[in-house]
Amino acid sequence: MSGPPPILNQAPFTLENLPYGVISSSQNSTPHCATAIGIHAIDLCKYAETREFNFDSVKDGQLVANALKQSTLNEFAALPAKLRQQLRSKIQDDLRQGMVPIKCLVPLSDVKMHLPMKTGGYSDFYTSLEHCQNCSGEMTSSKTFNIPKNWFYAPSVYNSRVSSVVPTPTDIRRPKGVYFKDGMDGTPEYGPSQKLDFELEMGYFISKPVPYGERMPIASAKEHIFGFVLLNDWSARDHQLFEMRPLGPFHSKGFGTSISNWIVPMEALEPYSCSPKNVQDPPPFEHLTWPGKADGALDIKLSIKLVRNGKTHELSKSNLKYLYWTPYQQLTHHAGAGCGMETGDLIGTGTISGSGTDSQGRKTELGCLYEAERTKTDVVPLENAKYNGYLEDGDEIVLEGWCEDAEGKVVLGFGECRGKILPAN
Amino acid sequence: MSGPPPILNQAPFTLENLPYGVISSSQNSTPHCATAIGIHAIDLCKYAETREFNFDSVKDGQLVANALKQSTLNEFAALPAKLRQQLRSKIQDDLRQGMVPIKCLVPLSDVKMHLPMKTGGYSDFYTSLEHCQNCSGEMTSSKTFNIPKNWFYAPSVYNSRVSSVVPTPTDIRRPKGVYFKDGMDGTPEYGPSQKLDFELEMGYFISKPVPYGERMPIASAKEHIFGFVLLNDWSARDHQLFEMRPLGPFHSKGFGTSISNWIVPMEALEPYSCSPKNVQDPPPFEHLTWPGKADGALDIKLSIKLVRNGKTHELSKSNLKYLYWTPYQQLTHHAGAGCGMETGDLIGTGTISGSGTDSQGRKTELGCLYEAERTKTDVVPLENAKYNGYLEDGDEIVLEGWCEDAEGKVVLGFGECRGKILPAN
Repeated sequence: MSGPPPILNQAPFTLENLPYGVISSSQNSTPHCATAIGIHAIDLCKYAETREFNFDSVKDGQLVANALKQSTLNEFAALPAKLRQQLRSKIQDDLRQGMVPIKCLVPLSDVKMHLPMKTGGYSDFYTSLEHCQNCSGEMTSSKTFNIPKNWFYAPSVYNSRVSSVVPTPTDIRRPKGVYFKDGMDGTPEYGPSQKLDFELEMGYFISKPVPYGERMPIASAKEHIFGFVLLNDWSARDHQLFEMRPLGPFHSKGFGTSISNWIVPMEALEPYSCSPKNVQDPPPFEHLTWPGKADGALDIKLSIKLVRNGKTHELSKSNLKYLYWTPYQQLTHHAGAGCGMETGDLIGTGTISGSGTDSQGRKTELGCLYEAERTKTDVVPLENAKYNGYLEDGDEIVLEGWCEDAEGKVVLGFGECRGKILPAN
Repeated sequence: MSGPPPILNQAPFTLENLPYGVISSSQNSTPHCATAIGIHAIDLCKYAETREFNFDSVKDGQLVANALKQSTLNEFAALPAKLRQQLRSKIQDDLRQGMVPIKCLVPLSDVKMHLPMKTGGYSDFYTSLEHCQNCSGEMTSSKTFNIPKNWFYAPSVYNSRVSSVVPTPTDIRRPKGVYFKDGMDGTPEYGPSQKLDFELEMGYFISKPVPYGERMPIASAKEHIFGFVLLNDWSARDHQLFEMRPLGPFHSKGFGTSISNWIVPMEALEPYSCSPKNVQDPPPFEHLTWPGKADGALDIKLSIKLVRNGKTHELSKSNLKYLYWTPYQQLTHHAGAGCGMETGDLIGTGTISGSGTDSQGRKTELGCLYEAERTKTDVVPLENAKYNGYLEDGDEIVLEGWCEDAEGKVVLGFGECRGKILPAN
């Protein structure tokens, strides 16, 4: 397993990327909007004050400039896509021509990252077929089926906890909760999780809202997505097994969700549109059927690393296109009952697993450790771990993601999604 | 079944109540903080500008005055309880002495009500034993137990959808979604819910936050509750049956949750502390055990009315003290995994059902229509309803709540929680 090329660690932030984030620095301790290029952030607040935005109209330029002066990206993301595209083109032109004023540049090493958006709702999906095949059974407490029938007719999803979404590299405290000591319906005990896990996901933020009480057609789903981040849905598997019946996950997910800090915009990801890996059988309902050509997925390569005792281990790899239900299908389903979607809402794709194996037939695309336990896959170096192959205090999990061109050259990356486990208190 | 006394419809807002809300009116169209007395609202923004707040210090008075100038109650609710109590005492004194300036009074008939708080998280519990006994089985798709074992060891709860919380009397659109046409795992179809239901609940708003990563002892749970409202957790039972496995309710609850508009503060409800109706067996974990005397519940009487074709029918009654897990236990559990609780967060108690029957042995304390279907109880006048005893387009549901003194005299009320069903679009 190779993981991302080394260059990614240096410069995931290329001219083709220009992700959006919220930074502060020693020069300006107030959180403000930024983009990133190479080893620098560009302070977009200063940039808007310095450069003239001659867009279609003076008013358009002022709208963009005002949005970039806010402390979150919400106002900017809510602008029409055309205006955001015009800003992106201007920054690209200015970079190519050396016209970005030096006073707008901040070394990334001097930057503190904040949550990029104010989020009103955070929902998390469960839409990877391989993940479900590897997990099903125990959590649903049924021996009569592997994956419930409903899963194949609509993307499965739950509301998660907004207040527990944290930026990289926030430490994650091992949570206390109730678990069955001796397996399902055994003796209930209250204490620190003994089966602490990660989940490899991506997340996407909403740009254009869907008003409460309304739906949207799948053909316009892209317009409602501002961009993507990496997302680690930390999970306490013993607490989860206890609480799943009948209302689904709560505490077992609500103690922390880490995201990478830079939102890679849809404009940067469009060139990586592709067919989903899986053919949907049964075919989806009409309102969930992607129109036109087979480009409803995104080809984004993913990897998981574990840092334990100072040593880095590559655990697994995956790809966003492996999802059975694509992000556009997810979003269309989500908005479908009229719940309302607001700018800044965060959607987790659900764990993204694949079916890949190595030369010894060992699974190499597992999206979490629970899958390793359930499928009896040794995930080196966890075989000797104290917690039955789960995370130990002090462990760090690092998710990475990137897009490659047709020749396999990395064009852009997401930066890291990173978090370290603190002992229970 | 008697329902609330008629006086409540005129004046639930007594001197002992003084609930908090956010209003606008023909005089002032900007949402602003208010309280209510009799048939009037008191504009608390004007009140703070007009009256001197001579609290413990000038600074304290300014803190309160500034908080009352905001467009939501969040800043006020986040103040120390002592300051909120001092404002309450001052308003009571001023009302007794005729010192509330007339320019601060607005007829309630001229008032438009808004959501009282900006809410970051909305969670909903499932903690009434009678409700669970009446419902269990189908939703959990198990024939081997009625209520899962975990239910008795920790209050069962899920994250719900903040963007769908609406004030009284917002209309509720019948949602579209996927359901099994021929019962569990039958033919999936996409369409308007055929089993639209209400749920009688109360909700409480968080005052003092619990920081992310921290817990709180149950003894201080009261300090974190600003006050209570009535809450109707509208539910699409056919969509719910489809989507429950394994992640719990989502669309079936996320199309609308109605609340009453005035938050009755904890200070007004403290005199109605009482023992819970149920003795908990097994006894709760130590961290969920209410300390000291048996006053961990609240005696709040509740009723449900249906308005159909212009005629009002009393459907059911209940009491907040019937809950198996009290609000203080709920909140302690909720905060227990470190998810963080913010000022303005809304917690639903879950459906509140009782075990009462009438002279013919018919159940009279069902909290929703699904219970009536499951227990084969005719809830007049729904026996002839088009949708198998569920809500029809045009139906209105009205929840009411009130507290009585030892002689059975009504001391305070919550006002209505009301919503009308619109046809699917």
